[in-house]
Amino acid sequence: MRENRIGRQTIVLPHPPAVIGWGSAAGRKEGRGPLGAAFDFTSADDSLGKKTWEQAETAFQEKALAFALGRAGLRGEDLDVLLAGDLLNQCIASAFHARQAGVPFLGLYGACSTMAESLALAACLLSGGFVRRAAAMTSSHFCSAERQYRNPLEYGGQKPPTAQWTATGSGAVILAAEGTGPRITHVTLGRVVDKGITDVGNMGAAMAPGAYDTLRAHFADTGRGPADYDRIVTGDLGSLGQEIVTDFFRQDGVDLGEVYQDCGVLLFDAKAQDVHAGGSGCGCSALVLTGLLLNEMAAGKLDRLLFCGTGALHSPTSAMQGESVPGICHAVAIEYGKEGTP
Amino acid sequence: MRENRIGRQTIVLPHPPAVIGWGSAAGRKEGRGPLGAAFDFTSADDSLGKKTWEQAETAFQEKALAFALGRAGLRGEDLDVLLAGDLLNQCIASAFHARQAGVPFLGLYGACSTMAESLALAACLLSGGFVRRAAAMTSSHFCSAERQYRNPLEYGGQKPPTAQWTATGSGAVILAAEGTGPRITHVTLGRVVDKGITDVGNMGAAMAPGAYDTLRAHFADTGRGPADYDRIVTGDLGSLGQEIVTDFFRQDGVDLGEVYQDCGVLLFDAKAQDVHAGGSGCGCSALVLTGLLLNEMAAGKLDRLLFCGTGALHSPTSAMQGESVPGICHAVAIEYGKEGTP
Repeated sequence: MRENRIGRQTIVLPHPPAVIGWGSAAGRKEGRGPLGAAFDFTSADDSLGKKTWEQAETAFQEKALAFALGRAGLRGEDLDVLLAGDLLNQCIASAFHARQAGVPFLGLYGACSTMAESLALAACLLSGGFVRRAAAMTSSHFCSAERQYRNPLEYGGQKPPTAQWTATGSGAVILAAEGTGPRITHVTLGRVVDKGITDVGNMGAAMAPGAYDTLRAHFADTGRGPADYDRIVTGDLGSLGQEIVTDFFRQDGVDLGEVYQDCGVLLFDAKAQDVHAGGSGCGCSALVLTGLLLNEMAAGKLDRLLFCGTGALHSPTSAMQGESVPGICHAVAIEYGKEGTP
Repeated sequence: MRENRIGRQTIVLPHPPAVIGWGSAAGRKEGRGPLGAAFDFTSADDSLGKKTWEQAETAFQEKALAFALGRAGLRGEDLDVLLAGDLLNQCIASAFHARQAGVPFLGLYGACSTMAESLALAACLLSGGFVRRAAAMTSSHFCSAERQYRNPLEYGGQKPPTAQWTATGSGAVILAAEGTGPRITHVTLGRVVDKGITDVGNMGAAMAPGAYDTLRAHFADTGRGPADYDRIVTGDLGSLGQEIVTDFFRQDGVDLGEVYQDCGVLLFDAKAQDVHAGGSGCGCSALVLTGLLLNEMAAGKLDRLLFCGTGALHSPTSAMQGESVPGICHAVAIEYGKEGTP
């Protein structure tokens, strides 16, 4: 039996699945940010006409998946599996969306690493011939997250400058065993890394060591370095976490350079939009991937992307119990041109 | 490229991975139930000496994994990936356990279907040659779940007769691409099915349609029927849900017969232990699998098992918002003797 692994944490996909569709549905603030014009849909009202923020988040997932299916020329029933997750308790945004989708569903929880986790697992299921077409997606919503993790909106809580702003929106990717498009070639599965940060207003610092750990493993396992990618993105560490990762590598003598950016930094104009350290939430990296990066790949502007989802695996309960914030990061290499077509 | 699917929802594993180890760590009440003698560990005090119930739940995971690794003759670092999930908000029991385990971690959320989901995904990762050794596991804890889903223990809330009792404990399974033991041969991925049940005190009724949907798909896809299995277990529908599934099949002219049982019914003596409709929680089916079923397989008493994890994908928030309870079920066929060895 063939082994499709290299090193300690990295999977090399023998039949790299193709990204045949992607869709993005963004909130109002996200639509007014630097990537605003790139999204398939931008809401005028983040409730999307629903009675609750949770139902609105589900509706963002619906829209993102519909655009992704449209781009792929597929209908929902053409999917063999939907892999999704979100930040809500018991991942209800995804579960209620999956109820409507009516296809086999695998629920995931990796906090803000979920977009990468869903891509990683979907890619393995496809490459192994276990499914033919899969959707990988996530969402987050500022209003549902704010109430659950911090305070009800009406409270008007203030945030420290290290805090991030949970993105409203959803991104969906359709992957297929056959077809043309950018291809997922490698997956590096991350370990949980916790350096003892207890400040839940500083997720970037809590997650940066996990991102460093996985990136280092990816480079060691594959023999690749920053120069082998046109873009390396983490999502979502924010500006502070991005600096920490850059610093960690600098100490190792590795310059990540201009190639490396964080989705939380890319999604908003931090100063003009008052989002402190940048964007966060499962929807943030999903929006940057489906709004910016995959469109760049389709336009021939970007060939080799390392997409690194970073998650903070705490809960309000664990934080109140004095626990520190464990971080995790999964990396997915998406390549066009070499292994991919045309 | 070979396609390893049959029908609409079922995956046939080309290299069926072997179950090379399993471990069970049960709470006090579970230890006093009909399966008490079968568990590797039974607690005298369900806090396990920890300060919080959440930390205790993590400690149950630790114990279950340690026993599973011991039976497999492995150390933690021999694992390529740990797939786990639980019922707690943001799945913290699993995340904090994964922090200690130090191996690549994939967090899952499928409510009480998580044990089957983790086995299904681990089996695909192994069969595709993407990992060599994987741990699949879940946990639940009566005290952490009761507070989160219903009321603090001190409140002394009463339950209706249709309600189930969240099991305290954890079960872990070690799967390997190579090795001898029972083998996972088929995986049927479930869809979300919601027939409009809004009574969160009657999960069995809410989940039964999902279990029926997946079992029916499994039979249709594989051409198998109840007679092809020595045991078919759902987990965890309780006595009422078990009756509903049996009834649904009876209406189709299919007699599930004595072969079919529910893990929630097997774990406790419902009358003597005052658990109303039976056990529930991610830990319930995990304990029955690792305490009873895999031991039966190892002893040559059970050759062909269809293990069907059933989950209710609601949250207290969705229930308070008037939403019904979506159900899901994933089925995993575990066989010894035919595809398996010796």
